[in-house]
Amino acid sequence: MRDLAHGLTVWLTGLPSSGKTTLARALEKKLVDEGLRVEVLDGDVVREGLTRDLGLSADDRRENVRRIGFVADLLSRNGVVVICPVIAPYRDARAEVRKRHDDGRYFEVHVATPVELCAERDVKGLYAAQRVGEVTGLTGVDDPYEAPDAPELTLDTSGRTLDESVEILWRALHQ
Amino acid sequence: MRDLAHGLTVWLTGLPSSGKTTLARALEKKLVDEGLRVEVLDGDVVREGLTRDLGLSADDRRENVRRIGFVADLLSRNGVVVICPVIAPYRDARAEVRKRHDDGRYFEVHVATPVELCAERDVKGLYAAQRVGEVTGLTGVDDPYEAPDAPELTLDTSGRTLDESVEILWRALHQ
Repeated sequence: MRDLAHGLTVWLTGLPSSGKTTLARALEKKLVDEGLRVEVLDGDVVREGLTRDLGLSADDRRENVRRIGFVADLLSRNGVVVICPVIAPYRDARAEVRKRHDDGRYFEVHVATPVELCAERDVKGLYAAQRVGEVTGLTGVDDPYEAPDAPELTLDTSGRTLDESVEILWRALHQ
Repeated sequence: MRDLAHGLTVWLTGLPSSGKTTLARALEKKLVDEGLRVEVLDGDVVREGLTRDLGLSADDRRENVRRIGFVADLLSRNGVVVICPVIAPYRDARAEVRKRHDDGRYFEVHVATPVELCAERDVKGLYAAQRVGEVTGLTGVDDPYEAPDAPELTLDTSGRTLDESVEILWRALHQ
């Protein structure tokens, strides 16, 4: 039984519209209700303070993950549960974050919703924009996504309600 | 009487070799001995994870302060005493950090050691290198340093032992 009050970094990696942010916010609520200290470091939260210079190149995506991972490590080693709903498409960048957390405080969740369903949800309209050529570099479509080999949890949100998915995640974290 | 266990950002601003890092490390030890959670965010600590792209231009110095201030806010609002021995030469960048800490968790210390003594100490050899033209852009010599107008504490380390200076700082933090 893991004691989350000791701090943990929960990294939700997956394609755009796979459900990362929705899961993160629902998990945050559940953990705050338990009395835990929780921070969600998503792209919008960190952009203004930490990553305003970064774009969508491979190097910039790696640097984005490096900075968020650095901050997550600082927070989680001080007893905070840090939830990072961040695509993090590259295996090496995620491995670097895991290594930084040197005492098992890193919990990787592959939000493995199939790309077809992600494209159907299309929360930010990116899949549609890519199809008509308005954007390029969409992770999982015309830009790489390297799926985790050995995440702590693989969670496919298709065919599940949000409550069901959060419950699976919550149980895995407490095990 | 301030309860430091609620978290506080202690920003030590001042010239190179004014004593910021030495004070930070001595204060860290004292506070850890009290059982507090403490993190020191100095340039060397954050460079690899957070600021490797930044140089010495005015914009980069502002961005350096912005990123460290962002992380300090996240940590201190979660009960950590965050000590930032960071030159932070620009008043507007420091004001932005103060504003981000929206509930009085920001404590600014002007380490006001006179530039002549800083140049004599010259821990990193920067003042000597500037004199012979090997470097330029040395804060307080040929690059701006905007001293704080209303810091929570002004501390001149000249004529004081380290223990005396740390004691002054420690008392001011607990008041």
